[in-house]
Amino acid sequence: MSREPLRPRDAYRHFTPISTRWHDNDVYGHVNNVVYYSWFDTAVNSWLIEVGLLDIENGNPIGLVVETGCRYAASVEFPQKVEVGLKVARLGSSSVTYHLGIFVEGAEEPAAEGHFTHVYVDRDSRRPTPLPEAWRAVLEGIG
Amino acid sequence: MSREPLRPRDAYRHFTPISTRWHDNDVYGHVNNVVYYSWFDTAVNSWLIEVGLLDIENGNPIGLVVETGCRYAASVEFPQKVEVGLKVARLGSSSVTYHLGIFVEGAEEPAAEGHFTHVYVDRDSRRPTPLPEAWRAVLEGIG
Amino acid sequence: MSREPLRPRDAYRHFTPISTRWHDNDVYGHVNNVVYYSWFDTAVNSWLIEVGLLDIENGNPIGLVVETGCRYAASVEFPQKVEVGLKVARLGSSSVTYHLGIFVEGAEEPAAEGHFTHVYVDRDSRRPTPLPEAWRAVLEGIG
Amino acid sequence: MSREPLRPRDAYRHFTPISTRWHDNDVYGHVNNVVYYSWFDTAVNSWLIEVGLLDIENGNPIGLVVETGCRYAASVEFPQKVEVGLKVARLGSSSVTYHLGIFVEGAEEPAAEGHFTHVYVDRDSRRPTPLPEAWRAVLEGIG
Repeated sequence: MSREPLRPRDAYRHFTPISTRWHDNDVYGHVNNVVYYSWFDTAVNSWLIEVGLLDIENGNPIGLVVETGCRYAASVEFPQKVEVGLKVARLGSSSVTYHLGIFVEGAEEPAAEGHFTHVYVDRDSRRPTPLPEAWRAVLEGIG
Repeated sequence: MSREPLRPRDAYRHFTPISTRWHDNDVYGHVNNVVYYSWFDTAVNSWLIEVGLLDIENGNPIGLVVETGCRYAASVEFPQKVEVGLKVARLGSSSVTYHLGIFVEGAEEPAAEGHFTHVYVDRDSRRPTPLPEAWRAVLEGIG
Repeated sequence: MSREPLRPRDAYRHFTPISTRWHDNDVYGHVNNVVYYSWFDTAVNSWLIEVGLLDIENGNPIGLVVETGCRYAASVEFPQKVEVGLKVARLGSSSVTYHLGIFVEGAEEPAAEGHFTHVYVDRDSRRPTPLPEAWRAVLEGIG
Repeated sequence: MSREPLRPRDAYRHFTPISTRWHDNDVYGHVNNVVYYSWFDTAVNSWLIEVGLLDIENGNPIGLVVETGCRYAASVEFPQKVEVGLKVARLGSSSVTYHLGIFVEGAEEPAAEGHFTHVYVDRDSRRPTPLPEAWRAVLEGIG
């Protein structure tokens, strides 16, 4: 279990607002640990769509999720709203690792932080493929 | 299968904005039919919290969901945002039925409409109990 | 709110076992009303795959969900297991309505019952299309 | 991104069977990365209930999830069934870290592996509290 403090708000370059839902809370009355990952997934893909890199139906290459993780520091509960911070932490030849942070709307301190790694593969062969230069430029934009 | 046209926007008295999530979409690329119910649940409970009627931990009486339903007219897909229309359609002695409508943000035409019925029971005995007068007044406010 | 008794176990022709999950329970400690619909969806599609009617990637026609509903009679809670009863209740020229029942494993009395209607459309034009005769025969098999 | 091979089947001491659901699959036709965490959560809590350590309503101490992670090696898709391997990997004075593995039913090779750490706190003060000796004995039983 890591013990370093969580990254602050200014460690992130883009924020995605997300509304919580009644059933994000589990039996203990707080957002279930699993739900944070649905927010990570949503923040990464929202941003990729916004900047024009993600074309679900026809895009090539396509990103496969190979690793994710999360450290939880404070609880969140419906009906709070959250903001998900995003930053590209590492750009490999065919992979991208994002850092993510969950902040209750307006809060300075993060409730959780995570990482999320995509490996890009050719749509047909499904073998790792170098990220196109145009992609690298956009991804470095939030690096 | 009912064939009446869906209720228009002005059939509702309160709107709750909800952001969609990556995995609201299913394999067909549209929001899965189940997810609409999580929006209904969220809209009803958000409103009950906003107006001060819902106190999850200590409230008495408590509402049990006894019936829900949904008719789907058009697809919604992440990353669209939706607005959930809400109205009290019927107020029984111990029950409340809501009408709900799903609208893609800014759309005039509904994507779906639903109903949702709570029966209120005593927290301890779990037997149906008349809605307090103070509740009726608030509920009639969006009737 | 309908008041007829729920359909008994022998009203169904096929049963799908489903394991519950920790976060099926909501803050009240019971399976959230929304989750029942994910079981309906799973039971219908599992059966369609089993009998060879559903080919997600290439099948034609494809089924769109146009109406669903559920009546709740008793609570279910993780870690219980459930069995979902299924029956074709109505076969239209291009639509199929299923009746569904949720039973806690081994229970005689249903915890809930629902309906679920697919309209079949041509994969390309997305207009309603008559159900192929071969499909009707299979669907009538659990009618 | 870690590159060690995933742990084999015999690295685990307990297996929980879980049925997949239609909407576990996302738009790419495979189980969404988030869903694996709902299986981890379910496997850990199922086992804790089975061995009598988890009493949701009254238990003391209670476990808070402080860290989770997952590495994905192969896709899983509905309607496959999975088995979740479980093992206690580290027992701290007030924390427990589990190793988890996702196996498609009958498969030798894991589709994914994860870790999951609970810190136990006193129900009232919410401060970390040493694990009772009786708990340690049971937890060591799958260590």
